[in-house]
Amino acid sequence: MRAVDFIQHKRDGKEHSAQEIGEWIEQYCKGEIPDYQMSAWTMAVYFNGMTAKEVAALTLAMARSGDQVDLSAIQGIKVDKHSTGGVGDKTSLIIAPIVAAVGVPVAKMSGRGLGHTGGTIDKLESIQGFHTELSQKQFVEQVNSIGVSLIGQSGDLAPADKQLYALRDVTATVESIPLISSSIMSKKIAAGADAIVLDVKTGNGAFMKTLDDSIKLAQAMVTIGSETGRETAAIISDMDQPLGYAIGNALEVAEVIDTLKGNGPADLTELCLSLAAQLVLLGKKATDASNARQLVEEALQNGAALNKLRQLIEAQGGDGSVIEDPKRLPQALYTYEITSTEHGYVSAIGAEKLGLAAMKLGAGRQTKDEKIDHAVGIVLRKKVGDQVSKGEVLATLYVNTKVTDEHETVKMVNDAYTISEVQPHQRPLLQAIVTKQGIQML
Amino acid sequence: MRAVDFIQHKRDGKEHSAQEIGEWIEQYCKGEIPDYQMSAWTMAVYFNGMTAKEVAALTLAMARSGDQVDLSAIQGIKVDKHSTGGVGDKTSLIIAPIVAAVGVPVAKMSGRGLGHTGGTIDKLESIQGFHTELSQKQFVEQVNSIGVSLIGQSGDLAPADKQLYALRDVTATVESIPLISSSIMSKKIAAGADAIVLDVKTGNGAFMKTLDDSIKLAQAMVTIGSETGRETAAIISDMDQPLGYAIGNALEVAEVIDTLKGNGPADLTELCLSLAAQLVLLGKKATDASNARQLVEEALQNGAALNKLRQLIEAQGGDGSVIEDPKRLPQALYTYEITSTEHGYVSAIGAEKLGLAAMKLGAGRQTKDEKIDHAVGIVLRKKVGDQVSKGEVLATLYVNTKVTDEHETVKMVNDAYTISEVQPHQRPLLQAIVTKQGIQML
Repeated sequence: MRAVDFIQHKRDGKEHSAQEIGEWIEQYCKGEIPDYQMSAWTMAVYFNGMTAKEVAALTLAMARSGDQVDLSAIQGIKVDKHSTGGVGDKTSLIIAPIVAAVGVPVAKMSGRGLGHTGGTIDKLESIQGFHTELSQKQFVEQVNSIGVSLIGQSGDLAPADKQLYALRDVTATVESIPLISSSIMSKKIAAGADAIVLDVKTGNGAFMKTLDDSIKLAQAMVTIGSETGRETAAIISDMDQPLGYAIGNALEVAEVIDTLKGNGPADLTELCLSLAAQLVLLGKKATDASNARQLVEEALQNGAALNKLRQLIEAQGGDGSVIEDPKRLPQALYTYEITSTEHGYVSAIGAEKLGLAAMKLGAGRQTKDEKIDHAVGIVLRKKVGDQVSKGEVLATLYVNTKVTDEHETVKMVNDAYTISEVQPHQRPLLQAIVTKQGIQML
Repeated sequence: MRAVDFIQHKRDGKEHSAQEIGEWIEQYCKGEIPDYQMSAWTMAVYFNGMTAKEVAALTLAMARSGDQVDLSAIQGIKVDKHSTGGVGDKTSLIIAPIVAAVGVPVAKMSGRGLGHTGGTIDKLESIQGFHTELSQKQFVEQVNSIGVSLIGQSGDLAPADKQLYALRDVTATVESIPLISSSIMSKKIAAGADAIVLDVKTGNGAFMKTLDDSIKLAQAMVTIGSETGRETAAIISDMDQPLGYAIGNALEVAEVIDTLKGNGPADLTELCLSLAAQLVLLGKKATDASNARQLVEEALQNGAALNKLRQLIEAQGGDGSVIEDPKRLPQALYTYEITSTEHGYVSAIGAEKLGLAAMKLGAGRQTKDEKIDHAVGIVLRKKVGDQVSKGEVLATLYVNTKVTDEHETVKMVNDAYTISEVQPHQRPLLQAIVTKQGIQML
């Protein structure tokens, strides 16, 4: 099929065959389909959508476009977890030990990521000695021996997706559920997952602003999972404020340790337990949902998950004593307290603004080669619904260079907080679970 | 506005301002907007359309993108005519002398065109001595003195349209009425027209397959005319078979002369008179439509139009005696008669196939640098509705190299004819007139 006929086919609302989609992506990667034809096609997809079979074919074509991780040497059902992102999201570091403690193998590759704070790998590297670059053999052996390994992404996973995403980003074709869902799932499939649990955020601070759109995205990904033989479930959670209190690499690791000790923030703990239970269910280590929930709660309460984190840290050369003594994590030299200028209730916290402020402090990177300062970041003292008096601390900056009242981040954090006279109505954190059985509203 | 925001604006069904569209086209011509952004935008236009104001702005932006012909030194309202194309379309050569004879100045530039047969300029060049490359000064002087001049296109008219069309052609965004109508009108406006009459073809052989779509295209162009101060009218005519009998440059000129002598094919004569009447009306040389019709009929009947053609030929160095003696036009060495293999009625003639056969014979060019053989072509002997006996001549090939029964064009012409047992229902040639006052169905 000529490229122009392929585009017209989608423009006219017709279905592509899996083979046609496979060739389209293959030719695009080889440079035989120019960007101007691909972008016209993605815009046609934006308007006309894709069938489940088409989305599955696109996902597999992108997964096949580069390296594909072979985890077959690991016993059991390999589960993976993906979050649609968020400021202060340290869930992977909590969930992986819980799930591994229950007996589901976690062989997870993570990117470093650009943006507000570092990725999972950057957070782990704030633990002294921890190294994230293992050979494929070491990676597999570690998962078989202790049940968990978290390493940096090696190889070139789903390069077609990378290329396509960069094009969509400049042609106003990002906001298309078939294209978003295939993008996410192609990377998970290339990374070797047998089963996938998705943490889909909803709300003002999230990529999907409405619950309805978030459910549609979740359903699309669950359907791709069914079509490609990778059982998939999604939890939709509210993202109107950062998760937990800490934003910044070492600060977040400390919060992870607290949480695995049972002293974590309620929102963070609850979301992690829910995601972990889904992973245990898909990993076939529980008889049903309530059994899965029971198993993950036990792993948290009896210290098995905390112990698994220590095993993970030590297996990868890190200083396991941070578990008992989180002060051994990099500490910032100075703190600066941001105080409220009003009496009232915190009615909203702009997660995006806080993330940007954390990045300005050095917790994240804007370009691939920038160095991260693991010690710096922000710890929230008040969250949505909390009462606050004038002069009371809203948040603390952790910095290595002294900050004055005029520092740009001070204003940014202040602006992120909205204080109102009346106590705000709070939406529940967990909104829905989407599985192949259907949608369960929470 | 960033390019991606501009695309998103259209994707979301919002209206662009004239200034935004102007900048968009200007930046595209400068290479500041890459093709992949332009093609995403044209696909968004395909789905969401454009308002009348947007289309007018796009038209003017494209007209301004290159040279703009200044015809202000010509007295009167300068009219121009455009046809959406067709095999055997020699209407410009008939209409220009009629209209000029009535007193409406015709200063027309034509392209050579690729395809089945030559363009208007190629047809004129089959007259010995006729030259089509006049200076701007000579062009204007000739129109002021004899009322008509037809020259080859010089300068670079609407290069943005050329660039955009080439991109649309490979990204399945040709079939968009806002984009088609602005493309046509931008070239006419750049060529200096004050008023424009459009010959919009409809039917299987035409670009617009249905009457409904043809009317929409005509309305879009009439609206652009209103928005840009160039009064525009359109005649929608059936294009299920070639117009007249002759296909090929000198053969068509001979048919033009016959028609101006009052002996032309009925379909060709009628369409030319209707288009000419609209031009006279827009050129403000008639009090109303019936007066316009009367004036153009008179010009045909009293020989004024034929005389105007002679003046035109002689003013541009051509051999005016072809008027009396059309045999002075280039004559092919051989003829070959294609006969019917069946009894019955001609129920359809595939214009596209005949055009292709004429090109194979040398009447048209596939690439810019190919030479045209002015003498060769096809003359139809039977048209839709005619009765035909087995062995009777359907069409005659005029060639300079002997043609055998096995020649590919013989089969092509035979295939172009469909013979049926019953007399076909014939649709009327003229279907509708679209003006700023509305649609008049014929």
